[in-house]
Parts: sequence; C-alpha cells; structure tokens
Amino acid sequence: MPSISKKGQLMPQSPIRKLVPFAEKAYAEGKTVYHLNIGQPDIKTPQIALDAVKVHSLDILAYTRSEGSDDYRKKIANYYSKNNINVKHDDIIVTTGGSEALLFAFGSIMDVDDEVIIPEPFYANYNGFSTASGVNIVPVISKIEDNFALPPIEEFEKLITPKTKAILICNPGNPTGYLYSKEEIKQLASLVKKHDLFLIADEVYREFTYDGAKHYSIMEETGLDEHAIVIDSVSKRYSMCGARIGCLVSRSKEVIQTALKFAQARLSPPTLAQIASEAALATPQSYFDDVIEEYQERRDVLIRELKSIEGIKIGEPKGAFYCIVELPVKNSDAFAQWLLEDFHIDNETIMVAPAGGFYSTPGVGTNQIRIAYVLNQKSLVKAVRILKEALKVYKD
Amino acid sequence: MPSISKKGQLMPQSPIRKLVPFAEKAYAEGKTVYHLNIGQPDIKTPQIALDAVKVHSLDILAYTRSEGSDDYRKKIANYYSKNNINVKHDDIIVTTGGSEALLFAFGSIMDVDDEVIIPEPFYANYNGFSTASGVNIVPVISKIEDNFALPPIEEFEKLITPKTKAILICNPGNPTGYLYSKEEIKQLASLVKKHDLFLIADEVYREFTYDGAKHYSIMEETGLDEHAIVIDSVSKRYSMCGARIGCLVSRSKEVIQTALKFAQARLSPPTLAQIASEAALATPQSYFDDVIEEYQERRDVLIRELKSIEGIKIGEPKGAFYCIVELPVKNSDAFAQWLLEDFHIDNETIMVAPAGGFYSTPGVGTNQIRIAYVLNQKSLVKAVRILKEALKVYKD
Ligand SMILES: Cc1ncc(COP(=O)(O)O)c(C=O)c1O
Ligand SMILES: Cc1ncc(COP(=O)(O)O)c(C=O)c1O
Repeated sequence: MPSISKKGQLMPQSPIRKLVPFAEKAYAEGKTVYHLNIGQPDIKTPQIALDAVKVHSLDILAYTRSEGSDDYRKKIANYYSKNNINVKHDDIIVTTGGSEALLFAFGSIMDVDDEVIIPEPFYANYNGFSTASGVNIVPVISKIEDNFALPPIEEFEKLITPKTKAILICNPGNPTGYLYSKEEIKQLASLVKKHDLFLIADEVYREFTYDGAKHYSIMEETGLDEHAIVIDSVSKRYSMCGARIGCLVSRSKEVIQTALKFAQARLSPPTLAQIASEAALATPQSYFDDVIEEYQERRDVLIRELKSIEGIKIGEPKGAFYCIVELPVKNSDAFAQWLLEDFHIDNETIMVAPAGGFYSTPGVGTNQIRIAYVLNQKSLVKAVRILKEALKVYKD
Repeated sequence: MPSISKKGQLMPQSPIRKLVPFAEKAYAEGKTVYHLNIGQPDIKTPQIALDAVKVHSLDILAYTRSEGSDDYRKKIANYYSKNNINVKHDDIIVTTGGSEALLFAFGSIMDVDDEVIIPEPFYANYNGFSTASGVNIVPVISKIEDNFALPPIEEFEKLITPKTKAILICNPGNPTGYLYSKEEIKQLASLVKKHDLFLIADEVYREFTYDGAKHYSIMEETGLDEHAIVIDSVSKRYSMCGARIGCLVSRSKEVIQTALKFAQARLSPPTLAQIASEAALATPQSYFDDVIEEYQERRDVLIRELKSIEGIKIGEPKGAFYCIVELPVKNSDAFAQWLLEDFHIDNETIMVAPAGGFYSTPGVGTNQIRIAYVLNQKSLVKAVRILKEALKVYKD
C-alpha cells in the first residue's frame, strides 16, 4: 500500500468538521440546532446577481481568460476606486474564491520553509494553505483583553528572521471581528518597508464595519506598491459564497506576473460565477446599508446577551460577523461536543466553533469559542440563552 | 523590493501564451486566424445543462459541502457504473475542474522532491502543478513513430527511485491522442503493485475514442484499489470547460480522506456549476454519438489533409481531439510565431501550439506542434492547406 504524503498527513482538518457527526446525531434525535459555527451568511444574494445567470445566452460554457475577463476586471477596478483604492485592471487576477487568491499569493512569494507572520487567532484555513505550500506560520498573539488589536509592532519585529517573507493580516478579522485602524496599518507598512517584506491583507470583509468606522486598506498606503497584496472575495460581500469568485490585487508587476502563471496552470475561474459576480457589482448601496444595519443590530444583541453571562470574556467586534468568547471551561472542543450530544433546552441546542483551530500556538485559545452572528436576532437571543444555561451545568 | 519565490520563478508559462500578442497583432491587421492551438471545443454544451442554471430557485448562493453535494456525487457514481467503473459516492471528491483534482492528488501523495513518472509528451500543465507542489517530473519518452504508445515497461522500471511516488498517464492522451490498450494498462497496474506506487490516470477525455475502440479505465483493474487515482472533468465531456467542475476518484480511503482536507481548506467547489454539471449527467446518448462522430470525421479529414504534406510525421490519434505533428523545421516556437506575424494566404493564417512545452526533456519535441481539431471540417481543410503552403516557403 503506497503511503500518502507527509504534507497530506499534516494538513489540518477543518475545526468544525469534527463536530459534524454530533450535529447530525442531534438532528436525528429531533433537536433544533442553532448554528453559531459557520461563515455562511443567511443574507439574501442580490437579486441582480441571481438573475444574471438566469438570462445568460451562452451556448458554449467556455473557459474565460486565466486572469478573468477584461470587462469584469475593469469593473472591479472601478469598484475599488469607489473604495479609495486606485488600481488598474492589470493589477487584478480573478480567482476561484479568496481561497485560491491566498494559495496563489503564498505560492508566488514563498518557498518551502519560508515564514509568514500572522496575528493569532486567525482564519483557520491559513493553516491549510501554508501546509499545502510548505510554508511555516509564525504567530504573534493578539489578546482578547484588547479586543484583538494589533500586537505592539516590536512583537512582530522580534519574530523576523531571514526566512520571513511576509506579514498576513485579516482586516476586518475572522475570527476576531477586529478592524485595524489607519495608525495600525501605517505601523505595519513601515515595518514591511524596513525589512523588505510583503504585506498581505485579507480584506474579504471590507464592507462589514460598524459604529460608522471606516475600513482602511493597505492599498491606500503610499510607497507600498511593491509590498502590498490584497486578497478579496465576493463570498461575504454579496452573500454569494457558492460563486467561488475572488481576486488577488497588487501593484507589483512581478507578483501579478507570477500569480498569473499559477492561474494559467488551472486555466480559468468559473464562468457562470463571473457572470453573477460582474452583475453583483451593480448592487445598489441600499442593499449594503440594510445588511450592515442588520449585522450591527445582531452584534449589539449578541454582545448584550453575552454580557449577561458571568465569568466569560468577549472580544468585542467592530467588523466582520464573528466574535471570540472566552469561557470558564478547560476545553472548548469537548464543550462544543457536549452541547450537541448532551445538552438541550426544550429540544434546542447550539453549535459553536471551538477556537483552538484559530491559533497555531499549542494550547492557546482552547477555552475560547467563535460565534458567527449569521442568525436573525430572535435566534441569536435564544442561542445565547442556551449557552448561558449550559455553562451553569457543564463540568469539564 | 521583496522578491518573489523560486517556485514562482520556476512556474512555467503556458506554451501558447507567448504567442497571444502575435495573434492579437494578426487580428489587428485584419487577418483571420484558424485556432488549432486550443483545447476549448466549439461543440455546444448540452441544453439541459445550460437550462438548469436558468431555472435555479436559489435565493442564497451558498457554499456546498467541500467534497460536493451527496446527490451530485451519487449521480456521478451512477455515471461511472454505466462506464464499467464501480465506485461509491464516498470514493469521489468534486473539484474545481480536473485541474484542482490534479493539484489535490499531487499534494495528497507527494512531498517536495518526490518524483512522478509521466510518459512524454504530456499535458503541459502537469509541469505547473508539479512546480507548485515542489514535485519532480521524470519523463519517459514515447515516440511519434509508435503513435505515442506506452513505452516499454522496462523504461519505466529503470526510472524508479526511492523518491518515485506515482506514475501519471493521460488516457486518451492530450497532446498525443493515444488511447492505451487494456494490455498496456495491465502492465502499468502490475508495475505499480510491484513497486508500491500510485497510478494516477487523467481520464478527462474518456468518451472521446474513435474507430469503435473502447476506453479501459484503471478503475476496471482489480487489486488496484489502494493505488488507483482517477482525475476527471466535465470540461470536455459536455463541452462545458467554463463550469470548472471535475472530480478525484479513488477507492483508497486514505487518499480520499487526505484530498478532502485540501478540499476543506478551499471550502467548496462552485455551486452554480455543480447545478449545471448535475443536470448534464442526463445528457442523452445521442449527444455523445453525434459529438464522437463529428470528432472522428474531423480527425479523418485532418489526417487525410496532413498526409498530403511531404516531410512531416503524424502521431495518428485514436482518442481525445489532439494530434502531434513533426515538421521539417528546427524550432516550432519560431515557426508558430512566424505563421502569425509573417505568413498568410488571402489574409488567413493559423495558430498552432508548439510542442516543446509538452515535453520536459530539454530539446525534445522542439520540431513538433500540437493541432487541436476543435474546428469544423471546412476550416480544418483550409487550416492544413495554410500549413502546407507555409512549410514550402518557411526557412529557419
Ligand atoms: C478571512 C477569510 N478569508 C478568506 C475566506 C475565503 O473565502 P472564499 O474562498 O469563499 O472567498 C474566508 C471565508 O470564510 C474568510 O473568512
Ligand atoms: C489532459 C487534461 N487534463 C486536465 C485538464 C484540465 O481541465 P479542467 O480543469 O478544465 O477540468 C485538461 C484541459 O485541457 C486536459 O487536457
């Protein structure tokens, strides 16, 4: 029997996946499960995007150019200009989701054993992409007490070695909900210039900012053209995660030319989804206003309800739709499983994402969970009440 | 200025891409260009697949399961059983094109510096996926004089080292058009069993076989369950290259579990395209009969016309829709460029794929081109006549 690769053995499982059989058992027992664990919003996709594929007049569903069609890229550049980001269509490569943009970015700038510094907790799949690329993640811990603000820049600097190629941030953050300030971005910008590193910013939640706060992109920084790489996606912006369209943006010609070679190897991003995504760019501002208002209300409800629970810590979010909560439990994996297997109120329970998978420092975050507020407010209230009662009776 | 990765520098450019500016110049000059260079068929996508997305009733375009929906995978398993391949839906992971299935296969079974033996000439993007994975391709030369039949099995055996993890074949072959016989597959099967290797078969052209020849899949071999990995795709089968749906098939639980981790990292294959691809499975047999008849006629026309050219060698195809031709030129890259820049008959010229990119042994195949017979018969006749006249006047 031939053996699979070491890389394959090291590839992490999705942190939620382990819980799926227990969720399925709960359904089978007739329980209602409130899903606080997923990044799939319940918000409707803009009708204009859904309709675009209904009226398509293709008779051959053909490959597009590997970097995406010129028309679509020009429209994306126009979207960016409205967001204070001046890029040309040539600075954009359309990818199969932000996921593929991350893979192309890692492959284009890092070799095996190179290092990327990432504030943790971070989006769990950065682990998968770095393992797939043979790259090592060097975490710098951000703290729930600071709502996961940028760690002091000296903490980053201490970790830089000759193998360090990049710093990767997620802004606003999954799973933290933290929105980096202009000042924090400027600190990172000087650091990468000083040490000649790339700065990758995963900005897939760009629109999701609350309390009137404005997102500041790394692409707004001057002098960063050879350093800045933005990862983007239509998944959350238009609630069209299943489209699988994203992009990689950089003003560095070398980065784009290199990423393009990765794009050429896989031929083309999905054609139907590009049609939908191009149409989605015409979504009216009112759609976003409604969505942001809804999320902000959900966040407020969530935080209000969570604050009524004793002995927990909350990383209060200013963006995205996630929130990290520290619980008075030893092992949130076991707690999450117990919620599905052994706990319910009137046959209702909750599924949460244990936060251990969002850290790469062993043992850190194992008493935390991530809550995604992708449910309506009534469900959120019920879900947090279940959490509250559960904590009263749970024993590690 | 931070530097891109060595891997990124090594990533090959698409062999056709270099010619694109010259093709664009030719258009700008008002020339008609017959495209013999591409793998994008002109055949219509089955209406049933195109219609399926027109009538979708989604209001949220959501992620599907990372391995593809159960329903779709069950239907794929049913398609395979009709093709004499008995697999369960659990043996299938739906991927973003055959391209992603190749990437998952490489990542699941090979680490950096491991080796995969591939008969050359081979599909050029195997180079890209191996570079991206840090894997080395060890070519075994197949000959145009044999129509690119399987090289003697001893030639493979000679190349096996402790680093060899797999043999990869493409059946029917791009760019060769060769269809491996049952006997050849059996030889490969014993070899991989003897040396405990994986056998990857890229069978994306399974349906495209001519002269009544039947495709024999590696999945039909007994005793190969732990070794066999099939790469598949809807791209060519239903002329829906832009869907970006394929799959990885293996009865090895370990391979599937490992590939699934790569699939989880990128979340989901495209949802709309899965709807179209699921519908495509109901395409009536008459569609395939017509398509195969059309390709067989095109092939016959192509070969007949090519045979009227003196001094060339033809690798006569029995499957897929490609054909390798050896020309009396020194450098087919330069020749292909010259065709676009400097040659035309009545303002018409041709674009061909120089074959050097399909070989990994340096210097081999540089006098060959690949012709894709994805044009109608009249255009093919015209195109070959242009080739004939061009060869009369061309001087290296
Ligand atoms: C921070 C972050 N980056 C990237 C992605 C990838 O999303 P997609 O591949 O759907 O664009 C996600 C999805 O949840 C995410 O949360
Ligand atoms: C031999 C072979 N394998 C795989 C592919 C990848 O195709 P796709 O990713 O569209 O399924 C192609 C496309 O031309 C091919 O010719």
